[in-house]
Amino acid sequence: MMEKLLYSGKAKQMWSTDDPELLRVVYLDQATMLNGKRKDHFAGKGTAANDISTLVFQYLIKKGIPTHFVKRLSDTEELVKKCDMIRLEFVTRNIIAGHFASRFGLEEGTPLDQPVEETFYKSDELDDPFANESDAIAIKACTADDYQKCWALARQCNVLLTKLFANAGMKLVDFKLEFGKLPDGTLVLADEFSPDNCRLWDIKTNAHMDKDVFRKNLADITTTYDEVYDRLKKAIAEGD
Amino acid sequence: MMEKLLYSGKAKQMWSTDDPELLRVVYLDQATMLNGKRKDHFAGKGTAANDISTLVFQYLIKKGIPTHFVKRLSDTEELVKKCDMIRLEFVTRNIIAGHFASRFGLEEGTPLDQPVEETFYKSDELDDPFANESDAIAIKACTADDYQKCWALARQCNVLLTKLFANAGMKLVDFKLEFGKLPDGTLVLADEFSPDNCRLWDIKTNAHMDKDVFRKNLADITTTYDEVYDRLKKAIAEGD
Ligand SMILES: Nc1ncnc2c1ncn2[C@@H]1O[C@H](COP(=O)(O)OP(=O)(O)OP(=O)(O)O)[C@@H](O)[C@H]1O
Ligand SMILES: Nc1ncnc2c1ncn2[C@@H]1O[C@H](COP(=O)(O)OP(=O)(O)OP(=O)(O)O)[C@@H](O)[C@H]1O
Ligand SMILES: [Mg+2]
Ligand SMILES: [Mg+2]
Repeated sequence: MMEKLLYSGKAKQMWSTDDPELLRVVYLDQATMLNGKRKDHFAGKGTAANDISTLVFQYLIKKGIPTHFVKRLSDTEELVKKCDMIRLEFVTRNIIAGHFASRFGLEEGTPLDQPVEETFYKSDELDDPFANESDAIAIKACTADDYQKCWALARQCNVLLTKLFANAGMKLVDFKLEFGKLPDGTLVLADEFSPDNCRLWDIKTNAHMDKDVFRKNLADITTTYDEVYDRLKKAIAEGD
Repeated sequence: MMEKLLYSGKAKQMWSTDDPELLRVVYLDQATMLNGKRKDHFAGKGTAANDISTLVFQYLIKKGIPTHFVKRLSDTEELVKKCDMIRLEFVTRNIIAGHFASRFGLEEGTPLDQPVEETFYKSDELDDPFANESDAIAIKACTADDYQKCWALARQCNVLLTKLFANAGMKLVDFKLEFGKLPDGTLVLADEFSPDNCRLWDIKTNAHMDKDVFRKNLADITTTYDEVYDRLKKAIAEGD
């Protein structure tokens, strides 16, 4: 059977495989900002994002989180279980930054007493509007039960990943997760976890180690992502 | 003691009184839109808003809702208990309209299976950004406990008012409430309830009977508000 390109997104392509329940993900060598309005090419970025995401998903699986991840296929590819995606972005914030800082006129860098949990509706045309639980239910993005279950998983991920990144010398400032359902109805963490979808700051200098180096033109994105990967690999090898 | 003008807002003035625990509210003959960017004068509008809000608050008090309302003082004035205000707007939506419709690209007029509950941070400078429960706590607008208690009260108000307005031949499409705390810590419904802060549609024709007649230049605002008042008064007199 011929593989078909099912979706070509801002950072990845999703391809069908011989197995109708599996997808092949191809990480692209590109970065976009302003919902795709700016797009640039970066050699090696796809590999770095794939490497990091593979490491993080394997780590979460080891800790008991259900995910779509099956295996790494190549430098830029992985095999995942095909999901019926929940069209929401689950954003967790541990430190004030970005949109949260500007929305409330607050200074970046202040740690939050409790994580902030915000959900947005995934829609390029609508510019990913915020959608709280009652919104999500009203627009039928998911049920109340799924909404709660996704946040319960996201909370577990936050605890695990905050610790992992701290061990790797980075602050997990904020991050976005996506969830989907397998054919049997199981809710799993899907999409990716890479510096494209989170903010990472060096634990000592607060230097940006995420997509903000591209957004703000601070450093080479591939070099930065490679550094994140090296640190994570070391932290995990050292026994986390 | 001289009364002092404590606050001059978009629709009302708040004056101190001889009693430090009481405020005099003056409803103004003006309407604004786009967060005050457009402002017009309408003779009789203050009286109509005061009449409606008095009726609604007295109705809610009769049904057991704690409020700041003490008494009507004149055509345009009322006496209220001074509150430490919670800087949030509690918006309940029963039918798709306005910002909710445009945010999610949905058609106006569709009834929602369950009310949508959205909270916004009251800040003219920040343009009243959305603030869900974890946001509200993070920015210290209120505690988790207060947030839940406000929504519990708002839900009771929605049940009571949806029925009242239906009896008066109107659909309560959506509305905004504000809450505050009395010196002893009691949470009460404060501010006002008038067609400035809700959407009312005629139950048969769906004609706008609220501030949208001003926003969309559809009808005279004072005439419209007077009609809302007459219908409410009749419904209440007929035994609600
Ligand atoms: N296991 C999965 N099964 C099906 N779809 C998935 C799975 N994991 C991720 N996806 C979806 O595949 C797409 C991945 O592409 P990419 O991340 O480049 O999209 P994007 O440009 O960010 O656009 P979007 O705004 O839709 O995320 C996303 O729409 C994502 O929701
Ligand atoms: N019982 C109360 N005690 C103290 N303040 C109150 C009370 N009831 C309402 N307020 C506040 O008084 C002001 C009323 O003025 P008005 O409604 O015209 O304000 P506004 O222009 O809408 O501005 P805002 O965006 O602050 O509401 C509001 O800030 C409201 O929160
Ligand atoms: Mg994506
Ligand atoms: Mg007001």
